[in-house]
Amino acid sequence: MMAKSASQEQLFIGIDGGGTKCRATIYSAQRGVLGTGLGGPANPLHGLERTLESIMVSTQQAMRDAGLRLESVHQLVAGLGLAGVNLPSLFEKISEWEHPFQKMYLTTDLHTACIGAHEGGDGAVIITGTGSCGFACVKGHSVNYGGHGFAQGDKGSGAWLGLEALKAVLLDLDGLGPQTRLSEMFKLHFNASSAMGVAEQMAGQPSSSYAKLARMVIEAAHDGDMVALTIVKDGARYISNLAKRLLEINPPRLSMIGGLSEPMQKWLDPDIAKRVEVPRQPPEMGAVYFAQNALLEEEQKVAIK
Amino acid sequence: MMAKSASQEQLFIGIDGGGTKCRATIYSAQRGVLGTGLGGPANPLHGLERTLESIMVSTQQAMRDAGLRLESVHQLVAGLGLAGVNLPSLFEKISEWEHPFQKMYLTTDLHTACIGAHEGGDGAVIITGTGSCGFACVKGHSVNYGGHGFAQGDKGSGAWLGLEALKAVLLDLDGLGPQTRLSEMFKLHFNASSAMGVAEQMAGQPSSSYAKLARMVIEAAHDGDMVALTIVKDGARYISNLAKRLLEINPPRLSMIGGLSEPMQKWLDPDIAKRVEVPRQPPEMGAVYFAQNALLEEEQKVAIK
Repeated sequence: MMAKSASQEQLFIGIDGGGTKCRATIYSAQRGVLGTGLGGPANPLHGLERTLESIMVSTQQAMRDAGLRLESVHQLVAGLGLAGVNLPSLFEKISEWEHPFQKMYLTTDLHTACIGAHEGGDGAVIITGTGSCGFACVKGHSVNYGGHGFAQGDKGSGAWLGLEALKAVLLDLDGLGPQTRLSEMFKLHFNASSAMGVAEQMAGQPSSSYAKLARMVIEAAHDGDMVALTIVKDGARYISNLAKRLLEINPPRLSMIGGLSEPMQKWLDPDIAKRVEVPRQPPEMGAVYFAQNALLEEEQKVAIK
Repeated sequence: MMAKSASQEQLFIGIDGGGTKCRATIYSAQRGVLGTGLGGPANPLHGLERTLESIMVSTQQAMRDAGLRLESVHQLVAGLGLAGVNLPSLFEKISEWEHPFQKMYLTTDLHTACIGAHEGGDGAVIITGTGSCGFACVKGHSVNYGGHGFAQGDKGSGAWLGLEALKAVLLDLDGLGPQTRLSEMFKLHFNASSAMGVAEQMAGQPSSSYAKLARMVIEAAHDGDMVALTIVKDGARYISNLAKRLLEINPPRLSMIGGLSEPMQKWLDPDIAKRVEVPRQPPEMGAVYFAQNALLEEEQKVAIK
């Protein structure tokens, strides 16, 4: 039986920053999850100030939920998963933040999502929500593919499905492409009667607005619409290839997360679809595991010295 | 011999508003082009104030160039071709402008481009620059197809070529798509070594930045790169279909204008390529012809009363 170490008592906070919200979970090895909190957008690529504010909002909410006094924030060891911190400049900027925690360990949102999905173990994860990307980590070696943002990357994602469908609808309405029932669906959705009427409502819209169209594309594909089917199958082929690329480093598990992971699964290569397992924990718990491991490594280094 | 009418002496100003600049030409039937001027961006969809300012800058420059006193702006009959005024709300807004001209006649930039290309006569025009679209006018009946903006429309345009190429490069660099020499070209262009390095420099960039990549795509296609060839041929197929759609109303002439019209011509359907004729006059002269016709019609209406 292991001696009860200080880290059994240590309070951790796992924080998962996302484009629309920030989730925080307070956890101790001894007592499990003590409280959770929710903040606003926390993608540092879209604004650093806003991100730090959302982190603090979710932190304070989680502390209140856990029945902790706000001053005890200094006792928390934080794990933080944020988009874009694979860029060294952004990693440095956030590392320099005068955060209130006892310690703060920073990594990408992909990394914490992966650690969470496999409950701290090695594995691979594919995220298909508004955007899409893949990440795998095996024995400390990690790879990531895809992402790259809307409209140049994120193939197979909600925003990509929406954009491809809109392009097909505009071609159809101009008499320059095959007919698709998506045209009637989009005209109804936008309350518009022409290509121009549909197009002007989407001009300059962010990727999240395109992602809102994805539901209709999936629906039309289910109904056998050839244009929608071609789009969905093209996206699913990409996701399958992404999975194969991740499996090259032999991760023991593969999970899919995000709003489109469930509807896309039926279109994946059967070989890939049968490999997909449920994510065991959410990304904010991945951030907790990440902080636990980082603290342990630090303590071991100190012990060796 | 026709009697010398008042409109022989009348001074006209033709104004062509574009996304990056505004061109003005002062003209009289008797004396031809008297002066030209150049202003800043004049796309009312991107800002009405800025557009009106650019119109006045180009107008004043053209007046100085013509040796006219600025007070005589009240004697000019203006023809104005602007993007987006096919939207009734925008047409109305600009019509309500307290302009300094004697009269002002407003239509779309596509319409004035078409009138200019065919020196006042009927015809069709395809614009392939940063964006793409088609317009035809025969006996007062006009049609227009395409456009719809980046990234959802404008197929076959410079921005579209650049975006499709970037998508292919990111797939290649991730090992998720066919190899293309565009990848080396783009890495060199962006001074980047990875997909991430290339992608982050294009994130959130406007369509004009994507259009700057088009030259490399055309070059790679000429060199026989299969990925670039597929993209360019797909774009050219769309432009050919757009031309066929415009030819349905039997315009007597077809012209192409914009920075990509020359390089794209060799990839068009041979049947279409041989129909393409040089534009005879620029869009700002189209705006002059438009104003001349509109004034004449008004005078005839008054005469009938």
